[in-house]
Amino acid sequence: MTGTSLDSVDTALCKFYQEDGKYKFDLINYNEYELNREIRALILRIIDNNASIKELSQLNFYLAHLFADCSRRICSDINFNFDLVDLVSIHGQTIWHNPIPELFVDRKISSTLQLTSISALSTLLQKEVIGDFRSADIALGGHGAPIIPLFDYHFLKIQSEDVVALNIGGIANCTIMLKQSSIDDIQAFDIGPGNMLIDIAMSQFYDKNFDKNGETANSGMVIDELMDKLKSIEYIYSNPPKSTGRELFNESMINNFLIRKYKAEDVIRTLTEFTVYCIVYHIKKYAPINSTIIVSGGGRKNLYLVKLLINQLKYYKISLIDDYSINGDAKEAICFAFMGYINILNIGGNLPKITGSSSKLKLGISASNFIL
Amino acid sequence: MTGTSLDSVDTALCKFYQEDGKYKFDLINYNEYELNREIRALILRIIDNNASIKELSQLNFYLAHLFADCSRRICSDINFNFDLVDLVSIHGQTIWHNPIPELFVDRKISSTLQLTSISALSTLLQKEVIGDFRSADIALGGHGAPIIPLFDYHFLKIQSEDVVALNIGGIANCTIMLKQSSIDDIQAFDIGPGNMLIDIAMSQFYDKNFDKNGETANSGMVIDELMDKLKSIEYIYSNPPKSTGRELFNESMINNFLIRKYKAEDVIRTLTEFTVYCIVYHIKKYAPINSTIIVSGGGRKNLYLVKLLINQLKYYKISLIDDYSINGDAKEAICFAFMGYINILNIGGNLPKITGSSSKLKLGISASNFIL
Repeated sequence: MTGTSLDSVDTALCKFYQEDGKYKFDLINYNEYELNREIRALILRIIDNNASIKELSQLNFYLAHLFADCSRRICSDINFNFDLVDLVSIHGQTIWHNPIPELFVDRKISSTLQLTSISALSTLLQKEVIGDFRSADIALGGHGAPIIPLFDYHFLKIQSEDVVALNIGGIANCTIMLKQSSIDDIQAFDIGPGNMLIDIAMSQFYDKNFDKNGETANSGMVIDELMDKLKSIEYIYSNPPKSTGRELFNESMINNFLIRKYKAEDVIRTLTEFTVYCIVYHIKKYAPINSTIIVSGGGRKNLYLVKLLINQLKYYKISLIDDYSINGDAKEAICFAFMGYINILNIGGNLPKITGSSSKLKLGISASNFIL
Repeated sequence: MTGTSLDSVDTALCKFYQEDGKYKFDLINYNEYELNREIRALILRIIDNNASIKELSQLNFYLAHLFADCSRRICSDINFNFDLVDLVSIHGQTIWHNPIPELFVDRKISSTLQLTSISALSTLLQKEVIGDFRSADIALGGHGAPIIPLFDYHFLKIQSEDVVALNIGGIANCTIMLKQSSIDDIQAFDIGPGNMLIDIAMSQFYDKNFDKNGETANSGMVIDELMDKLKSIEYIYSNPPKSTGRELFNESMINNFLIRKYKAEDVIRTLTEFTVYCIVYHIKKYAPINSTIIVSGGGRKNLYLVKLLINQLKYYKISLIDDYSINGDAKEAICFAFMGYINILNIGGNLPKITGSSSKLKLGISASNFIL
């Protein structure tokens, strides 16, 4: 998968199986293959309506070629025989996500759009490929997100504890699983920005992809004026089901707040504090005191951000997902491999109470464009 | 399906089966449900790079809702029980087709893009949906077109005659099947404009969708200056495999020829003569004298165009597909239903010699987003 952060192709080679009625997986290999800067820039241009339909179509196939290479490399890097791979599962690059129905010509329409030609990928690899995991839920009135809660339930739920699975990727999202609850009691939603605003500002001010260890934030001061503007974003205070992405938290948004007029490190500090503010706001509102918070995603490596979280969530137990024998960088990629696995098992992938859709559904479409 | 002419949703309800080792079909119902003018205009804006990514994403889902309605209507209009439908097969609305590889960032890429969320359509109908029939062939270096020759071979081939299946839709294409030849000997390609240029000009000058019976053309004179410019388009003289579409033959193209400065009926006459010129050029070059030409598509109703064809192809036998017990309006829609049928039979849908791809392939992707 490639997430909202657009930094790399996160590629996981997994073996899924069932044991004692439970899903299990082995992570055989994981790597983040860097995404070409030109492609990253093009994706941003597409999202900002500054690309042609030809570029969009060409990118759709380019990504199939790129992901085909990554699929082969994740095997060849460890001399794993690619012929043994049964299935390739792909999230695709989100370029639009519009989960709330809006009047469109003469109908109320909601939609989501992930690029990567699934048919081309299947053709190039000569494997079955499953992808497009969000559309079906959207078509039934859901948000098509979050998808990760089912994975969290199967792999992170602890029967004797209240657990919050907190993923800090481009966007921050959380899954709240209370002790002794069932799958129908899970709460989950997108919190707001994860690393995205920080990364955008790091790119603008320093031409860097992210704030390593949070060092820049650590050297700056909070700008109250900017912080107040950020805190006024309505999404934060809206009720679940809710999901968000680069449509809201993007370059234009922070540029509208005129960040250029402040000192760079102060902007990074403020954005980091704001990101933590959003996370803390939601955890305090939705998760019981003493919950175990299991942090995954790139944001868990931002030491300053994690320090702020620990300081502001004193009555919660914060740990990293890596302590639970799950590679914290790989979690989302493993989750979408799991979505492919349950598609071929004909098992529903959405949790309607969480996405807001009207029914539990099989998610994903399938391509098997084999040479005959 | 919706073709390059963007006038209607051509919807066929078919039963396919095999008898004595041959494919057969019954056309149970056929209708052309008019495409909303606003949607037609939006599709054109998308192709012309004048729409936002949000509009593209919303249209992708809007079309799924629209096609779901058409799928139900083609049944309910004749009181056919929709529950009896096994499969929905959909071409999707082409918005880009780029069959020749071009350098894109760091790779040579060709691509095609059809809109309609297959996953949303499957979800809304609770049926298996097959679509996206061109991508796999493109991924193997083919043109992803034409797709109709396999259908022509199975349903229009006459062992004792040289046959040209000529479809005059938005684009004109032909399949040439010589007597006593096999499937590997078929030639087929896109000829050039079918009704498209005529329709665009009718829309500009008269705000009408097409030239009914060719009456406008019949009342005009050929403009030599414009005809010479049209005849200089290189695509006409290029060798197969070749395919084309609205990327080349579009509004900008004819506007570049400053058609506004001529009399309206003369422009329509000239475009009609040019369309016939392209067809005649290819038939004389590629089909033996005395071939039976079986004409399908909306263009066969343009009496003036057909009269020109008959005059200029004296040494060929011109007939309408309707004489062969196939509804001439429905042919392409039936063909794409057939493509869905052979996908589930695991039979290859492309003819590599014709599309130029490196292998015979299963075409199409599948969605079965069932409520569980």
